[in-house]
Amino acid sequence: MTAAPHRLDIAVIPGDGIGPEVTREAVKVLRAVTGDDVDLALTDYDLGADHWLATGQTLPDATLEQLRTHDAILFGAVGAAPGDTRIPSGLIERELLLRLRFSLDHYVNLRPSRLYSGVPSPLADPGVIDFVVVREGTEGPYTGNGGTLRGGTPHEVATEVSLNTAHGVERVVRDAFARAAARRGRLTLVHKHNVLVYAGRLWKRIVEAVAAEFPDVVHDYLHVDAAMIFLVTDPSRFDVIVTDNLFGDIVTDLAAAVTGGIGLAASANLNMDGSAPSMFEPVHGSAPDIAGRQLADPTASILSAALLLRHVGLDDPAARIERSVAEDIASRTGSRSTAAIGDAIAAAVS
Amino acid sequence: MTAAPHRLDIAVIPGDGIGPEVTREAVKVLRAVTGDDVDLALTDYDLGADHWLATGQTLPDATLEQLRTHDAILFGAVGAAPGDTRIPSGLIERELLLRLRFSLDHYVNLRPSRLYSGVPSPLADPGVIDFVVVREGTEGPYTGNGGTLRGGTPHEVATEVSLNTAHGVERVVRDAFARAAARRGRLTLVHKHNVLVYAGRLWKRIVEAVAAEFPDVVHDYLHVDAAMIFLVTDPSRFDVIVTDNLFGDIVTDLAAAVTGGIGLAASANLNMDGSAPSMFEPVHGSAPDIAGRQLADPTASILSAALLLRHVGLDDPAARIERSVAEDIASRTGSRSTAAIGDAIAAAVS
Ligand SMILES: CC(C)[C@H](C(=O)O)[C@@H](O)C(=O)O
Ligand SMILES: CC(C)[C@H](C(=O)O)[C@@H](O)C(=O)O
Repeated sequence: MTAAPHRLDIAVIPGDGIGPEVTREAVKVLRAVTGDDVDLALTDYDLGADHWLATGQTLPDATLEQLRTHDAILFGAVGAAPGDTRIPSGLIERELLLRLRFSLDHYVNLRPSRLYSGVPSPLADPGVIDFVVVREGTEGPYTGNGGTLRGGTPHEVATEVSLNTAHGVERVVRDAFARAAARRGRLTLVHKHNVLVYAGRLWKRIVEAVAAEFPDVVHDYLHVDAAMIFLVTDPSRFDVIVTDNLFGDIVTDLAAAVTGGIGLAASANLNMDGSAPSMFEPVHGSAPDIAGRQLADPTASILSAALLLRHVGLDDPAARIERSVAEDIASRTGSRSTAAIGDAIAAAVS
Repeated sequence: MTAAPHRLDIAVIPGDGIGPEVTREAVKVLRAVTGDDVDLALTDYDLGADHWLATGQTLPDATLEQLRTHDAILFGAVGAAPGDTRIPSGLIERELLLRLRFSLDHYVNLRPSRLYSGVPSPLADPGVIDFVVVREGTEGPYTGNGGTLRGGTPHEVATEVSLNTAHGVERVVRDAFARAAARRGRLTLVHKHNVLVYAGRLWKRIVEAVAAEFPDVVHDYLHVDAAMIFLVTDPSRFDVIVTDNLFGDIVTDLAAAVTGGIGLAASANLNMDGSAPSMFEPVHGSAPDIAGRQLADPTASILSAALLLRHVGLDDPAARIERSVAEDIASRTGSRSTAAIGDAIAAAVS
């Protein structure tokens, strides 16, 4: 969305588990598709659960400042094995992944959902699925607000506070309307305003206000529970979904599942005002159970690299990756190694 | 779960839209199945959106006190048509339905999910689906806590506070373990403790503590986003899900969808210590678009009546309804009116 740069300076955070494997293939495809047209500079950052075990550090301030200097960040996956008791549960997710999203003001968490031809959906009659979820990325129940009173006792009270601001909601809603206008002109707000009245009222007010700027976009509203039903009974009805951070987390995993699994789901954490680099990551996690065995599908990571290219204005190579991925998926028969899939797509985009 | 009463005194709240139609069939089946064995007393309460339009009242204190005197409440559905601007959005849901759940301390919101043979699932390969969701009903983000600062301005801040107590979590978790012990011995906690750390820590601590009392129940944990994926890719893995009020709302609509729709999904709002009557309601809403035309499926309401009977200790008639419903569903071919379905099931249980 900015002019095509001659130099593209990317920070790469491979992370844990299958993160390094899939990221390697995304980098392979990035190199292949940009060829001599772009001067691609890649800098690896060693962060994640393994790094924490070795150093006790999640994301030092100095590293965060260094990351800010890049044009974009390609992120693999982080997180320890569920059974690993050496690492406080959720620590890496919060202090690395969420800290990056919040510090770099990634207010548009963009998650496209598309059912590629040739991909089996768990739905009997999926129809055409092609929508994007615009998930707010810096507010809601994700702010870490809340606390514990009388912790560990029979009188414990634990609170979680969802914080929502007009500023935060408006910028993401406007972004979602703009995307809807450039697509099929249909936007659905997903919330639960009959119960979460304060946040719900704010979201509804802002959607109505911004809708006036986009007369060609039709918008409707679904409670999050009703959205669940439509996602499995009529996913074709969606074009752009805009929703808060927590509902977006839930909706996008279901969306990934109905379109054939999180092995294919890409995402972008976008800072749309350019004050910090945006970050591109597969929706899937680090999957320690299959790590290091070349079993992971690198497609989500490769598609995330395409989102990266599109974000920095390199629409042609982005489209080339997406086309090649679609063709590769359509022709999949047996299982191939992580590297074999990357090789095939890299060859196709060159 | 109490001894079978000779007299059963039920408050009936038919409500709005299709509520009265489906409730009429549930009452028909209740009468048929109890026959001369039970002295069935039914008292209708006129409450809901239409009642509010006529009187300006949602749930007067005196009515709430009267409701407390019954053995149980059979609830239809409430809520105005989405486009009806005369009724403040969400008002009836909050001031009637949620007020009942909270005032009558319905801390176990029980929602069984079962894929009946003969029912088409939207899933291509649903397998055997038979689980129950034990949703906390009196806490979490449903407490109405929160507020608005600088409302309606560009500087608006809206908060929603999720309140969770050891008392509230423990009683519902213990109930869920007991149900798992009486079923297939498997319990899954669904939460999002990597992000909602304070509430998540409380839920995890209590699940671990109560698990010690149920050595025969195996328990695991899923983040709510991962639970979405399993609900469409492997719903057979679930036996009992225990979760908070909001996650429970979301999970149960998806569960209803994968088991053939909310036309079949029953629910019970249980006060397990008997300090107030429990309430039984279909998961579906008032569906004003099809109201009054005998198009609604009364099965969810009829199955809710079965849950009512089981709760007051009338296990045999409850099982008779459930068996007859299963047989009726298995033999469904064309479409029948609301009353015709009720008639058929009433005849089968007599
Ligand atoms: C790992 C976790 C903190 C994260 C989230 O909840 O946002 C993940 O589920 C996602 O969707 O990117
Ligand atoms: C109507 C609404 C307040 C209610 C809820 O959110 O609990 C409904 O969706 C349900 O699941 O019973």
